[in-house]
Amino acid sequence: LIGEADVVLHDDLVADAVLALASPRAEIANVGKRCGAKSITQAQINARMIECARRNLQVVRLKSGDPGIFGRLAEEVDALEAAGVPFEVIPGITAGAAAAAGLGVSLTDRRASSRVIMVSGHRASNNTTREQPNWKDFARDDATLIIYMPGNNFVLLRAELLAANLDPAMPAVLVSHAASPRERRQSTTLGELHKLLRMESPAVLLIGRSLDRVLRRLNPTDAARAFAEAEILLSSL
Amino acid sequence: LIGEADVVLHDDLVADAVLALASPRAEIANVGKRCGAKSITQAQINARMIECARRNLQVVRLKSGDPGIFGRLAEEVDALEAAGVPFEVIPGITAGAAAAAGLGVSLTDRRASSRVIMVSGHRASNNTTREQPNWKDFARDDATLIIYMPGNNFVLLRAELLAANLDPAMPAVLVSHAASPRERRQSTTLGELHKLLRMESPAVLLIGRSLDRVLRRLNPTDAARAFAEAEILLSSL
Repeated sequence: LIGEADVVLHDDLVADAVLALASPRAEIANVGKRCGAKSITQAQINARMIECARRNLQVVRLKSGDPGIFGRLAEEVDALEAAGVPFEVIPGITAGAAAAAGLGVSLTDRRASSRVIMVSGHRASNNTTREQPNWKDFARDDATLIIYMPGNNFVLLRAELLAANLDPAMPAVLVSHAASPRERRQSTTLGELHKLLRMESPAVLLIGRSLDRVLRRLNPTDAARAFAEAEILLSSL
Repeated sequence: LIGEADVVLHDDLVADAVLALASPRAEIANVGKRCGAKSITQAQINARMIECARRNLQVVRLKSGDPGIFGRLAEEVDALEAAGVPFEVIPGITAGAAAAAGLGVSLTDRRASSRVIMVSGHRASNNTTREQPNWKDFARDDATLIIYMPGNNFVLLRAELLAANLDPAMPAVLVSHAASPRERRQSTTLGELHKLLRMESPAVLLIGRSLDRVLRRLNPTDAARAFAEAEILLSSL
């Protein structure tokens, strides 16, 4: 699909290897706007897509992650629909799922975590008037919480999450640049969240019992039981 | 990766086109267990992976969707870690994200939906003693709810979600076989949820204001505003 595009409008985080798939004849433009540096507005991106489509050009609007999860897809779709521009949405691997896979953990666990909650922390934005999540409304010990754009104020975030009655022993892993060569991680618990070091954006913060195995890898006990089960089966084969 | 595998252990839902990527010399086995027909247990799958690994075979355990989201990845990872078998998790597109992309909608919307909640409805299982989600704990009008395995008892599900104070006008879309040639959809509202027709498993049920545009596509009003904005910009270019 990228190879067939006349125009590729991409965000900052798209890997060079992906852009290299574009045709040498294609126009490639970075329309990214990282962390408040609003060099180009959403309305300008919409306008450019529509203008290209009206010139009968095939446009690929390329984002990293999943455009439908904190990717501002809704605004772009609205503009395209209103302009009568046909489009197709191709899903991607969202940063939270990429981070979990990189850690070798499952986001749900029938024994510990029955749901996944993807929420934006918003604090990376300079817009401090923007509404903050009301953690008490949805944060629970039996869910895995994925906080996109968690910001750097881990003292405040810790206080808010503890005030929402989350268990301080809950594992927390901060992943910067998930699934890229620049990926970096810090593992801790919710109670120690304030000790996290500032990491480069984009980052996701994963909190939940499903991450237990990240912390216990040096001392696997539950895992030993699963192993014993498998051993018994193997010896009976 | 699939092409390099000596053994491919896959679930029922993996597309033939994906299995065709395997080497002609590879052993390919379906270890799927759809909807209660437990022809092979999780412990047996674990044992088989470990046994193959001990024979120095390269094993690909292939699932459709994302293994870390209601994919029972946790049990498999536990067994592999305990057995000392090195592994890598490759993320996938989870059914909820695939369904949303197919609908051309965003799961989050800065104007309407600030988070995504992925939860299992469980009712597809014959195990009626299994715990049901406590919707009041997390279902809110400003979230997009993705219910995996929603089952077929939409009368009960509607009653429970309304009892959790969700808005009856909230759009709801049931998607069966997301992102496959067999994909089928039904769109309605939460208040009319009981009128949904039974659909083939696997299915996901999406509920939330972010799906508004699915219902309003015949009568776009919000979209007109975004279009007007884009028009103004275009005329000033």
